[in-house]
Amino acid sequence: MGASVFFYVTYVLCLCLGLLCVLCVICWSSRWRGGFSWDGSALQFNWHPVLMVSGLVVLYGIAVVVYRVPFTWKQRKHTWKLVHAGLMLLSLLLSVLGLCAVFDFHRSFHIPNLYSLHSWVGICTVVMFAFQWVLGLAGFLFPYPPLWIRSALKPVHIWIGKAVLILSLTSCISGINEKLFLTLNGITGEPYNSLPVEAKFANSLGILIVAFGLMVFGILSKNKWRRPETDNESVHLLLNEEGV
Amino acid sequence: MGASVFFYVTYVLCLCLGLLCVLCVICWSSRWRGGFSWDGSALQFNWHPVLMVSGLVVLYGIAVVVYRVPFTWKQRKHTWKLVHAGLMLLSLLLSVLGLCAVFDFHRSFHIPNLYSLHSWVGICTVVMFAFQWVLGLAGFLFPYPPLWIRSALKPVHIWIGKAVLILSLTSCISGINEKLFLTLNGITGEPYNSLPVEAKFANSLGILIVAFGLMVFGILSKNKWRRPETDNESVHLLLNEEGV
Repeated sequence: MGASVFFYVTYVLCLCLGLLCVLCVICWSSRWRGGFSWDGSALQFNWHPVLMVSGLVVLYGIAVVVYRVPFTWKQRKHTWKLVHAGLMLLSLLLSVLGLCAVFDFHRSFHIPNLYSLHSWVGICTVVMFAFQWVLGLAGFLFPYPPLWIRSALKPVHIWIGKAVLILSLTSCISGINEKLFLTLNGITGEPYNSLPVEAKFANSLGILIVAFGLMVFGILSKNKWRRPETDNESVHLLLNEEGV
Repeated sequence: MGASVFFYVTYVLCLCLGLLCVLCVICWSSRWRGGFSWDGSALQFNWHPVLMVSGLVVLYGIAVVVYRVPFTWKQRKHTWKLVHAGLMLLSLLLSVLGLCAVFDFHRSFHIPNLYSLHSWVGICTVVMFAFQWVLGLAGFLFPYPPLWIRSALKPVHIWIGKAVLILSLTSCISGINEKLFLTLNGITGEPYNSLPVEAKFANSLGILIVAFGLMVFGILSKNKWRRPETDNESVHLLLNEEGV
């Protein structure tokens, strides 16, 4: 099997897994948590897991590996930088909206914000993500930074990118775990430790999210799947640098 | 600053951070959770976070970056493979002991095992780690696998190694979060959401663990810090392959 075919099989599997995560988190919130609204009620909270999983994990993961798709290698890198930055911006906006959902819900019910470890890690994730997006915009999309700055910035950008993915997985798993402990408390239904259907379903969602994240890491770690750096790109980078 | 000096500064910082994580998790269990014993009581549970943080995160992280230390590059790689495998085995044993601590505690208190998402991710982590250790032993320490198998196995070994680190971070953060929700429930003291000193301390421990994990990832991702592959090593690999 050629490298490209193997990539596309893995990539499509990864996309399907991502889609499955989004469908499952929507299903969890709709089927067991009462659905959605934006009125400060518990139904507003339900947007939080959906937006975080869709934005911070799935869309982020797809945006991270966009340069790996061989189909894009024959096109200008700048075009795909715009796609990468655009997808990342959408992912960031969904994440911020996800935070608004939970902060609004907390305000309505007089629940303090940012007390749990999940929330500490989660807020660090989104702040680091926002910093990374601005750094990426200033360092790689704007034409003025000299080539040596871009070269020095690239490994930092890649490292922060992976860090955000690790943090987002950690936040999501601790968040789902926290939600299940808070809601399946045995007062209005079966407790978490008796593993009712909802618990099995949400735990499986957590495992799917981890599997998606590890697949993204797998795609990133395969050197053969990196976009080849051509001379044209270096010239383009230099031209950009000179403001042409 | 030379690459080697920069490495050692980062490495020592990483070691200090790891040591701080171990000290803090011991302090948390001793100061706020009553200390340690091995009698099925809640004090036996306290070994669980200590052994998982020390074994599965800190020792694992140190074992992962052992090849990056420039001091080792002039010595035979086989010696450092043994150190790597030995540290990993110790890390695995501590993790299994950490699981025994929690299973024993659950048995005494008739608490079901493996119901939370934290426990599902945690058990996947340890199983994957054990599989990886056996794979590493068979693939890289035993002399018989042909060179092409080792070459094919290496990226898989590296990817699973990173996956275990990501999973161990995810398990630890969700575990600390879970423990704080279960114990700081407002019945025998201040609730978690009022952020008592214990909560601030344990949340900070979680952030330290994440910082340690991300530093390990940072060290791994810097190409300049990789052990240079010399011709001698290839010859040694071939000699090993032929059983000499």
